[in-house]
Amino acid sequence: MHQLQAPGRAVRAMAEWAKHLGGIKGVVLDISGVLYDGGGEGGGVPIPGSIEAVEKIKASGLKLRFCTNETQATRGKFVAKLQRLGFNILVNEVTAPAPAACRILKERNLRPHLLVHDDLVPEFDQLDKANPNCVVIGDAADNLSYKNLNEAFRVLIGLENPILISLGRGRYYKETDGLKLDVGVYMKALEYACDVQAEVVGKPSKMFFQSALAEMEVEPQQAIMIGDDIVNDVGGAQQCGMRALQVRTGKYRPCDEQHPEVKADGYVNNLAEAVDIIVKQLHK
Amino acid sequence: MHQLQAPGRAVRAMAEWAKHLGGIKGVVLDISGVLYDGGGEGGGVPIPGSIEAVEKIKASGLKLRFCTNETQATRGKFVAKLQRLGFNILVNEVTAPAPAACRILKERNLRPHLLVHDDLVPEFDQLDKANPNCVVIGDAADNLSYKNLNEAFRVLIGLENPILISLGRGRYYKETDGLKLDVGVYMKALEYACDVQAEVVGKPSKMFFQSALAEMEVEPQQAIMIGDDIVNDVGGAQQCGMRALQVRTGKYRPCDEQHPEVKADGYVNNLAEAVDIIVKQLHK
Repeated sequence: MHQLQAPGRAVRAMAEWAKHLGGIKGVVLDISGVLYDGGGEGGGVPIPGSIEAVEKIKASGLKLRFCTNETQATRGKFVAKLQRLGFNILVNEVTAPAPAACRILKERNLRPHLLVHDDLVPEFDQLDKANPNCVVIGDAADNLSYKNLNEAFRVLIGLENPILISLGRGRYYKETDGLKLDVGVYMKALEYACDVQAEVVGKPSKMFFQSALAEMEVEPQQAIMIGDDIVNDVGGAQQCGMRALQVRTGKYRPCDEQHPEVKADGYVNNLAEAVDIIVKQLHK
Repeated sequence: MHQLQAPGRAVRAMAEWAKHLGGIKGVVLDISGVLYDGGGEGGGVPIPGSIEAVEKIKASGLKLRFCTNETQATRGKFVAKLQRLGFNILVNEVTAPAPAACRILKERNLRPHLLVHDDLVPEFDQLDKANPNCVVIGDAADNLSYKNLNEAFRVLIGLENPILISLGRGRYYKETDGLKLDVGVYMKALEYACDVQAEVVGKPSKMFFQSALAEMEVEPQQAIMIGDDIVNDVGGAQQCGMRALQVRTGKYRPCDEQHPEVKADGYVNNLAEAVDIIVKQLHK
């Protein structure tokens, strides 16, 4: 019975949001939980139908941008992993927090103390890190030890004007072996410890979505975001003037559809279903 | 010049708060940062004059209660350490969060998942911990690893009615080798991750101060609290109807004297100075 009901729900939902797809010229895709589930030995597994869905967008004439808060590896390494998993994706199609943060740090002459994943450190190679005047925190997984968080805290509390830059503000994400705490949790920890407000680089920051749109050369109302995070993907994109769908994969939980503050323009079972509907409407 | 100014400030401050000491029958003392600074090989060093100050209170006829958020050891072990450092202190003179939390857990049939210091675990020996229906978090120092915080998160997010009990909500404390993140920082992290509000057992909770007062059999307006934490010691005690002094030892920072929300009844250089003034007033 349950298996029969799921397509029925999808068809009813489709009827609703698919009516409002006029003028769509570009698609913005979240990666983790939409294209693939991370974790395990090979670094993750593709979500069924997603490899083909990316190809379908590219073949449709729609513009495409990947917009991720991934900070466990450089953009280059991350894209190489996705290519190995079978995805048609290039480094210059990806908007990611670390390169955006680097630009900001350079512009403002900031010397970061880094609390990030070891594999992300090379992104910051060009920056002066001696005598730090800010802290940059990312999803560092096991590097988020008590010792390392305490070190970052001591840098911040010792600054006259403490600046905390957070690469995203997610609560958790899903890997093959279960839910994992994300950077936002540790950002909140440091905010409380030092009584500061972090500056977020990454989703749901408006500037971050805007830079993805600028790369595609489309206006917000011409773009649709597809993500598994009701707040950071869907809510963030909507705040920016885009339409946004939530997929029922990755970290999706049924209670997301009753979220008190964010309502997606549509809910779909997965990326493949979303792309089918979007491309079909395009040719009407 | 600076060394000459400090006593001057103290004398001026004394003139102010010492006028309002009428009716004081009991003293509530914070321990870490007031009696001693923790850390290092011997487990800490007494703050000069504090050993004698405790003796002076006991000799004065004032009632005395120690009120700590210390959760890195059982109350018994913690008191034994203080005795080795030279303090005249007994287990039954100490109000601490873990025994208070145990009473609450038993009353409400809660089975805790513990994220606490290894040395605190014996306090919870009598409780059923299988199939946990709540999380108890304490200042666990290096035990607050990514892996352990993630485990506690998974327990909480899996509960229909997530209950998080935090043994205190301090931001940081001072050890001999510098500032250390306290439990409140990790409480905030889990609150954000799971969208819950923790129940705090320990300072600044009103119930916690009230139980210390009940042990002394004095009313709030008859008691004075002395601590180094402007929010959790001073603010908490004042909320409870007590007077409160902040010492300029432990985690004290000069900016505490301009705290936007909490103003101590008086600021003193250390416990010895506070006790001198209080005892002198008593005999007037």
